Amino acid sequence: MRAGPSQDEIRRQNLGALLRYVHVHGATSRAELTTTLGLNRSTIGALTADLAGAGLVSEGAPKETGRAGRPSLVVRPESARVYAYAYSIEVDRLRAARVGLGGAVLDRRELDRPRGLTAAEAAPLLAGAVKEMQQVVPAGSLCVGAGIAVCGMVRRDDGLVRLGPTTGWVDEPIGTALSAELGIDVPIAVGNVADVAAFAEHARGAAAGCDNVIYLYGDVGVGAGIIAGGRRLTGHGGYSGEVGHMVVVPDGARCECGSRGCWETEIGEHGLLRAAGRSDARGRDALLAVFDAADRGDARAQTAVRQAGDWLGFGVANLVNIFNPEMVIFGGTMRDLYLAAAAQVRSRLHAIALPACLEHVRLRTPKLGEDAALVGAAELAFERLLADPLDAG
Amino acid sequence: MRAGPSQDEIRRQNLGALLRYVHVHGATSRAELTTTLGLNRSTIGALTADLAGAGLVSEGAPKETGRAGRPSLVVRPESARVYAYAYSIEVDRLRAARVGLGGAVLDRRELDRPRGLTAAEAAPLLAGAVKEMQQVVPAGSLCVGAGIAVCGMVRRDDGLVRLGPTTGWVDEPIGTALSAELGIDVPIAVGNVADVAAFAEHARGAAAGCDNVIYLYGDVGVGAGIIAGGRRLTGHGGYSGEVGHMVVVPDGARCECGSRGCWETEIGEHGLLRAAGRSDARGRDALLAVFDAADRGDARAQTAVRQAGDWLGFGVANLVNIFNPEMVIFGGTMRDLYLAAAAQVRSRLHAIALPACLEHVRLRTPKLGEDAALVGAAELAFERLLADPLDAG
Repeated sequence: MRAGPSQDEIRRQNLGALLRYVHVHGATSRAELTTTLGLNRSTIGALTADLAGAGLVSEGAPKETGRAGRPSLVVRPESARVYAYAYSIEVDRLRAARVGLGGAVLDRRELDRPRGLTAAEAAPLLAGAVKEMQQVVPAGSLCVGAGIAVCGMVRRDDGLVRLGPTTGWVDEPIGTALSAELGIDVPIAVGNVADVAAFAEHARGAAAGCDNVIYLYGDVGVGAGIIAGGRRLTGHGGYSGEVGHMVVVPDGARCECGSRGCWETEIGEHGLLRAAGRSDARGRDALLAVFDAADRGDARAQTAVRQAGDWLGFGVANLVNIFNPEMVIFGGTMRDLYLAAAAQVRSRLHAIALPACLEHVRLRTPKLGEDAALVGAAELAFERLLADPLDAG
Repeated sequence: MRAGPSQDEIRRQNLGALLRYVHVHGATSRAELTTTLGLNRSTIGALTADLAGAGLVSEGAPKETGRAGRPSLVVRPESARVYAYAYSIEVDRLRAARVGLGGAVLDRRELDRPRGLTAAEAAPLLAGAVKEMQQVVPAGSLCVGAGIAVCGMVRRDDGLVRLGPTTGWVDEPIGTALSAELGIDVPIAVGNVADVAAFAEHARGAAAGCDNVIYLYGDVGVGAGIIAGGRRLTGHGGYSGEVGHMVVVPDGARCECGSRGCWETEIGEHGLLRAAGRSDARGRDALLAVFDAADRGDARAQTAVRQAGDWLGFGVANLVNIFNPEMVIFGGTMRDLYLAAAAQVRSRLHAIALPACLEHVRLRTPKLGEDAALVGAAELAFERLLADPLDAG
């Protein structure tokens, strides 16, 4: 129902499109920008000049191409100068990073996170990490915002963490708490870890160019970040992708959410450790020890991994029938499980998924690895810049 | 990554936005269009003149308002003159209709469909219905296209019906077959019945104004049309929404798809008739007879309906956790089941769905009733007109 944009909106849109292109693709010749963006040379020149004036891009000669003729000037994102802070609040650790325009991690800090740490306790720890990084930021740099990835359900409108089953958080305003701790009044964007990791893998990782993607992320629980038709699926309140609470075993094992037989009771940390006879253990290292034991021939560990792999394939098949994706990415502990039980996953997938829904599905591990959460959190912050480069810049 | 539009694109976008507005909302004053579309009075005047010139809208005085002052002119869609043909291929019947711009059904025909009828056999029947309707189309009318709703998996790119479990169709080019039968070379848009019904309910039905909607449609099988972030979810190939093949009972009853324990084995026609001790019966009337028997106190029918209602709530809860919708609409036989077992549906939903995912969910029946499939099929055809009104008009 939306009418066409005004001249001002078109200019903002063009500036954003150009900046986004070099943010995602790196240094790009003016000739390529002209073709890709479908704008004429003089418009590209004017947009580049505006962005360069704001210090967001620079122009220069390309690297030696070996070809004759005058090469087209190259537009580069100011990756070392323009940056966002990114935070990741995970089950066992806190991470903070400074991420440059273009997506490179410029600096990073990591802290252990005792399970049970509240948002009020986490904020000063993260703020401390930022203050350390701030001391080595080169003069003339420009911070354009900050984003946080959280294991939990994040309200879309204001970033409130409604429920973080693995952190124990309920209604925690982590963005506000961190802003206050840092003494800034810029809002900090907050997103679910699977959602922002999907966003990052879609922008510049394994799913670049894919419009329909399921990024499955596991730690204690399991969630998914979903890209549908090229856009992030958020749901009405921001809580979509709670695939770990799809019930797969009616009247199955009790889940922390209060229901029974949720998918994550079978493929999450607790379920896998329980099946391996290690109910008292917890944490990623304990989980990796199970995969390691299975690798070394431990029969009980092997059975546990195979079973969990069956359930992983079972649930992914349901999601394939529901979403008809072109790619499923296994992140966090789901990566480890998938790599350890790929045969089970594929077998169940082919037994359950409808052939048409499955026919173009590729199964992948994250290209950005564990950085996906940090890079994705930074992308949340860059979104504001890319929407209106000269206002935010 | 898309750059801003050209002047030509903006004009098309504005023409489309205005035409879409009156298509959905009916007669609208110039003043309201100016406000709603955010365009100035002279632009609205020029756009209206262009659309009126193409015979797509007309302008006139509003109905008497009783207020003083000169009333703003009203823009009306040419609902009686501009139309699309809509077809619906269902388990037990074929329907054809002529639907006016604005969404009103102007004429319709209905035929029984013997189960087992092929696409090649269905096409002449539908073409016959069209030829009947064509004889009474007023002179000067304008047909802008045609759309078909099909119970089956429809390939997005070309409308091929890949698999219609309830029709028995495999790789049937129904759009091409019907075009050939009608002797026209305009492509006929094809969509899954749940998808197009969702589209219609979202445009002008129960879900108007809702951006995140699950429309659950049942006949022999069960599928969903999903609106996410205001847009239709299609998946990579067009096959998303096959929620009836979400497995809910591991190693459960054999499903026609080859898997076991699919949701539709519990809530679809066969499952419900089996549970009611009427395995030999089939068809919508047989199903309605079970609801009727339950209503009249038949214990076995009551148990069957309650069980199916439990499973309906179970699956909807899974979908609520996955999609965090704001509305779930129960269409086709799911409407009957929901109305007969709303208590079971709500109870399971509250037991399983995460509170944050569920908190704003409204459960509804279709506002367009059984016309949703026809109106949605027509919407597929109108989409092309709305994307570029003066080219297609």
